[in-house]
Amino acid sequence: MTAAADPTTPFRLPLRVYWEDTDAGGIVFYANYLKYFERARTEWLRAQGVGQQALRERTGAMFVVIDTRVRYRAPARLDDLLHVTVQVRHAGKAALTIAQQAWRGDTLLADGEIRIGCVDDGTLRPRRIPSELAAAIGLPADGPPTQERA
Amino acid sequence: MTAAADPTTPFRLPLRVYWEDTDAGGIVFYANYLKYFERARTEWLRAQGVGQQALRERTGAMFVVIDTRVRYRAPARLDDLLHVTVQVRHAGKAALTIAQQAWRGDTLLADGEIRIGCVDDGTLRPRRIPSELAAAIGLPADGPPTQERA
Amino acid sequence: MTAAADPTTPFRLPLRVYWEDTDAGGIVFYANYLKYFERARTEWLRAQGVGQQALRERTGAMFVVIDTRVRYRAPARLDDLLHVTVQVRHAGKAALTIAQQAWRGDTLLADGEIRIGCVDDGTLRPRRIPSELAAAIGLPADGPPTQERA
Amino acid sequence: MTAAADPTTPFRLPLRVYWEDTDAGGIVFYANYLKYFERARTEWLRAQGVGQQALRERTGAMFVVIDTRVRYRAPARLDDLLHVTVQVRHAGKAALTIAQQAWRGDTLLADGEIRIGCVDDGTLRPRRIPSELAAAIGLPADGPPTQERA
Repeated sequence: MTAAADPTTPFRLPLRVYWEDTDAGGIVFYANYLKYFERARTEWLRAQGVGQQALRERTGAMFVVIDTRVRYRAPARLDDLLHVTVQVRHAGKAALTIAQQAWRGDTLLADGEIRIGCVDDGTLRPRRIPSELAAAIGLPADGPPTQERA
Repeated sequence: MTAAADPTTPFRLPLRVYWEDTDAGGIVFYANYLKYFERARTEWLRAQGVGQQALRERTGAMFVVIDTRVRYRAPARLDDLLHVTVQVRHAGKAALTIAQQAWRGDTLLADGEIRIGCVDDGTLRPRRIPSELAAAIGLPADGPPTQERA
Repeated sequence: MTAAADPTTPFRLPLRVYWEDTDAGGIVFYANYLKYFERARTEWLRAQGVGQQALRERTGAMFVVIDTRVRYRAPARLDDLLHVTVQVRHAGKAALTIAQQAWRGDTLLADGEIRIGCVDDGTLRPRRIPSELAAAIGLPADGPPTQERA
Repeated sequence: MTAAADPTTPFRLPLRVYWEDTDAGGIVFYANYLKYFERARTEWLRAQGVGQQALRERTGAMFVVIDTRVRYRAPARLDDLLHVTVQVRHAGKAALTIAQQAWRGDTLLADGEIRIGCVDDGTLRPRRIPSELAAAIGLPADGPPTQERA
């Protein structure tokens, strides 16, 4: 059993830049920041006790990405050590908007907002976020004040 | 020698969904639409007579991505045939904003805006878009009316 | 309805090198040749009238890769136009070994053998290649002379 | 300063399977094991005090992959925790053959041999492995008994 996440401190995942991440410009290929952001969201959920594969098998719930916005501010290179943050910005009954940032030391490399929606893994239709997950990430049972229609 | 692109009709690239593009949700992994969009921008430039590798070798100019915004509207699956469009929305002296869409038949799967900046490939500092490229994609010598500071 | 493939002439797929394919060495990242080879196998099957998604939905049969061997002979770069070939080397009741090559003009860039096995998509257990597929790619009903036990 | 690696015990890197690694078969896409293997080789080098980006900047030496052989024995799925091993099998003046395995607990998922060659990063021509790297990974100055001509 883990405690609900403190919504005021972002979760941080360290990760390393490998050859696979770079392109012929000598820097990290921009699409790969979406992978970095997702790894961080996955580990943030795991830190709250939620494994997505287990959740899917138990409830049929799966997350899909609805909207992404990423601003690229400085390049990263092979062997750089990055930190990627996760912070819930808005939460609704069926979707979350997550603010994310990638840092190398105190240099902000990229930041963005990722909106993810909960769907049924068979039909891909929107569904309510399972209560065990909502509780794990600290959402009130009726949804938070910033609740959106998703 | 090719004619300058007609800015009123989007360029269209057909492409096929392969195993590499999908994820365990059974659909195209969302980050891969950034790859699809880039393939389309590359072929759009090539259709205007501009090869990026040759341009870089000749001028030292290279494009980097500054900002991406993508909305995901419907999933694509293995073997789907998609069409990806390219249309210049804003053009400045050193950056372009490109509107892009991915379609399967008449179903819009994803759309977004990608902002790319021209940089020196050694320093990665912003530089003016080479005149041969500006001419090829139909930008006036002084930049278009929608010119931005990049 | 398409004719069975001529086993003496390799199938050829043209493809272009994009930014996504390259790494900070300035060349195509070696793992991506496995993607190129797979795109070619997919189009080779499609040219025989076999779509893998449709086949899976109809029969529950799916291919998985059992073994790969790739030799890298010369690098490819951004914007290069490649041709990737497909030729069946051995065929068994439940597996195929495919010889593949990637060329740029008359320069051989990479070649290898990919062994793929037919499995049930639920259990991932080996199963016989569906007869419609075996017929489409020119395998005799009892398997070819080079038949292997898979 | 780190001690030379013990050649009798493989280096082990833990890593997690994310959405980006999977395909529509519900399992890790086979090409991605080459990425896993490379991450492990990179961390093995780093554990000996060798950063590839720093080495390249200092000496102009870079590794390229010459040959890969991978056998796939069991599938991995989203959220699986893997361990990837690295062990030098043969070492020459300009190339190394590395044996690698991916495990989930005591289940062997994939294993293979990766042959990498040292090249000049400008010309991509083969060159001798820099002595600082050879020393770091425990190769004798004249090469080991299993030395190959590379």
